[in-house]
Amino acid sequence: MKKNLLYAQSGGVTSVINASAAGVIEAARSYGARIGRTFAARNGIIGVLREDLIDTDLESKAAIAALKHTPGGAFGSCRFKLKPFSEARAQYERLMAVFAAHDIGYFLYNGGNDSADTALKVSEMAAKLGYPLTCVAVPKTIDNDLAVTDNCPGFGSVAKYVATSVLEASLDVESMCESSTKVFVLEVMGRHAGWIAAAAGLAQRPDFDLPLVILFPEIPFEQDKFLARVAHQIKIYGYCTVVVSEGVRDANGHFLSEAGGSDAFGHAQLGGSAPVIAQMITRELKVKHHWAVADYLQRSARHISSKTDLEQAYSVGRVGVDLAIEGRNATMPVIERISDTPYRWQIGVAELKRVANKEKKMPRKFISKDGFGITDACRRYLQPLTLGESPPPYRDGVPDYVRLLRLSVERKLPIYRIEDA
Amino acid sequence: MKKNLLYAQSGGVTSVINASAAGVIEAARSYGARIGRTFAARNGIIGVLREDLIDTDLESKAAIAALKHTPGGAFGSCRFKLKPFSEARAQYERLMAVFAAHDIGYFLYNGGNDSADTALKVSEMAAKLGYPLTCVAVPKTIDNDLAVTDNCPGFGSVAKYVATSVLEASLDVESMCESSTKVFVLEVMGRHAGWIAAAAGLAQRPDFDLPLVILFPEIPFEQDKFLARVAHQIKIYGYCTVVVSEGVRDANGHFLSEAGGSDAFGHAQLGGSAPVIAQMITRELKVKHHWAVADYLQRSARHISSKTDLEQAYSVGRVGVDLAIEGRNATMPVIERISDTPYRWQIGVAELKRVANKEKKMPRKFISKDGFGITDACRRYLQPLTLGESPPPYRDGVPDYVRLLRLSVERKLPIYRIEDA
Repeated sequence: MKKNLLYAQSGGVTSVINASAAGVIEAARSYGARIGRTFAARNGIIGVLREDLIDTDLESKAAIAALKHTPGGAFGSCRFKLKPFSEARAQYERLMAVFAAHDIGYFLYNGGNDSADTALKVSEMAAKLGYPLTCVAVPKTIDNDLAVTDNCPGFGSVAKYVATSVLEASLDVESMCESSTKVFVLEVMGRHAGWIAAAAGLAQRPDFDLPLVILFPEIPFEQDKFLARVAHQIKIYGYCTVVVSEGVRDANGHFLSEAGGSDAFGHAQLGGSAPVIAQMITRELKVKHHWAVADYLQRSARHISSKTDLEQAYSVGRVGVDLAIEGRNATMPVIERISDTPYRWQIGVAELKRVANKEKKMPRKFISKDGFGITDACRRYLQPLTLGESPPPYRDGVPDYVRLLRLSVERKLPIYRIEDA
Repeated sequence: MKKNLLYAQSGGVTSVINASAAGVIEAARSYGARIGRTFAARNGIIGVLREDLIDTDLESKAAIAALKHTPGGAFGSCRFKLKPFSEARAQYERLMAVFAAHDIGYFLYNGGNDSADTALKVSEMAAKLGYPLTCVAVPKTIDNDLAVTDNCPGFGSVAKYVATSVLEASLDVESMCESSTKVFVLEVMGRHAGWIAAAAGLAQRPDFDLPLVILFPEIPFEQDKFLARVAHQIKIYGYCTVVVSEGVRDANGHFLSEAGGSDAFGHAQLGGSAPVIAQMITRELKVKHHWAVADYLQRSARHISSKTDLEQAYSVGRVGVDLAIEGRNATMPVIERISDTPYRWQIGVAELKRVANKEKKMPRKFISKDGFGITDACRRYLQPLTLGESPPPYRDGVPDYVRLLRLSVERKLPIYRIEDA
């Protein structure tokens, strides 16, 4: 008995989330005997509530394949948390009505922690309301903080971007430090965990030393200790590269990026931990600085995605469909590491309740004793995730990314306003 | 009669300045009958004054070839302007003493406007002081503002980086705008001219529309007009990408990035035009923003250098040596455009006095009438410069850049302190 499949993207997008979409859609197309049509919700769960569905069957094979080299979320993503059943029963009833109206038997939700929670809630409420649904979460997050899985699709590419950018900018500063900039500060993402900041450590190698100071959200910021370290690096190397996580806080738990309201730094400013650190360096050490904030550039940089990351993102999409077909409700494909060197991995399965609302922190043993760098154990963990290149095709000098047709499925239900939910 | 060649790098480095170095050194090695040894000054003209020279003959053929894929300035660069002869005759006498001590007959100085001026001064003073020297400038600047040459080595790669980053980040925001960020602001370099900002326009194509607003230093910033344009883009597309040059000023000539002290925006802040623009958008339009500052990342991003730019950078290095050998004193190789489509170019020659202390502005006809975008003429000019890819080799997930031995040439003169000059 054929059922239709519904796929949706959720949370902050990555440079390879569309590879997961391609994995889902290509696998679904190959299951012609079991899966009828393959829909995607526009803008994640919001699109399900609004019955705003896209018919992926109308997209060409070439367009779906091109998703593998296209960043962003091809169907639109969202930041939207479902309320608990007790507060918003109508919301869940609406979801089931949309599933029923379009004969959805399989729901694949592609996201991070919040999305795993959403997928779990949807699967529980479907059971409660008696709607037959197999619900599978497909992992994705640059934050690399999902439980159970060894790593998260999307992270390896950010790690490659950050390590490469830090290496390149350091060589630039190294050239100029005699008579110009002596400290370069790069701000990277990671509000709660230092996984992305840690990736900067991959720019250093045993045979290619760089004077790098990393500021992790896990380590409370101490101005004197930090400045002493930077001054030391300048003395030895002539310059210093500082990588600061957006989530760095002082001993009182205040974000550095909100230092405008804090006595410690004394200047009102517009957010961003890099400018705070940069200004502090020039004020206290009297050396010239430059600073950069990578922001969305780091998570959308498909042009330098990790091939390993890309393959894993595609695989979790495909295996997600396998799990759905097998009726493995409330599960998520996870990446299991078999060995570090050579790096070998496989896709396993986790129960969603072991994943939802958990957060995987970076182990303290991954941060060096002084708190400013990564350990060999961290390097062994991170490096494989950045391996390999898979550049997009270029057209006239710029990547040739695809935009899908995104043709809407005909609506069958009354209009539903999310604002009323 | 063999003479030695001295090469030096000057000013802000680029992702391909080392390709020019490779061109110089490989060409010099091929002129064994005319050129004795090939030296490089450490940190530009500073290294000449200090007699701090590097013996490039001790670098392997493979290491010199690897310069073509390595960003930064392999021999060190500098920000240092020679004083006029009338104020600092001793400085010029020192330069000649160093040239004489190391039998330098050819001096190749690789840089931008200031460096062309330095090269011209050195050549004039050599003549005045009776030292036989052929002095050639090798062009380089991401600012693309050198006179005579159609474009400047280093710029095409920044243009490719900016266009690609804007495209990628825009796809990211497009995915999220329904329930999250609606405006993304990217700050790019260009204190005086909007060439780099203009390159963002290449992210748009006739068949791939993006809601892009570019703020050029050439166009005085008008807050109301700008906000109306952004609001319009959000209304039509759901989001907007803003690319702001670091050099944007208001009608009174004040830099936006110094708006901290200005009444117009009213908030003290730490520099950077992106955070000023971003805060303005959220304050006035009540939408969520994200902002990024590319800073050194854009000019050091060898991983996404333009192949055309790379080939041009290498060629001006090689031709620079040809000119030196031919005794074409006080000249500079320039890039001449033969045709736009297909793009064809050749290397020509310019007298240094036509280049030094000139600045090529972006023509007004390259900026659209409304001041927020580029024209077709601009696109025809820019696009060829970004054509082709030439990625570096990777090792363990990160580019495999080279660091030279940089072994010093034995000193023959008394120590000279630049501070005393």
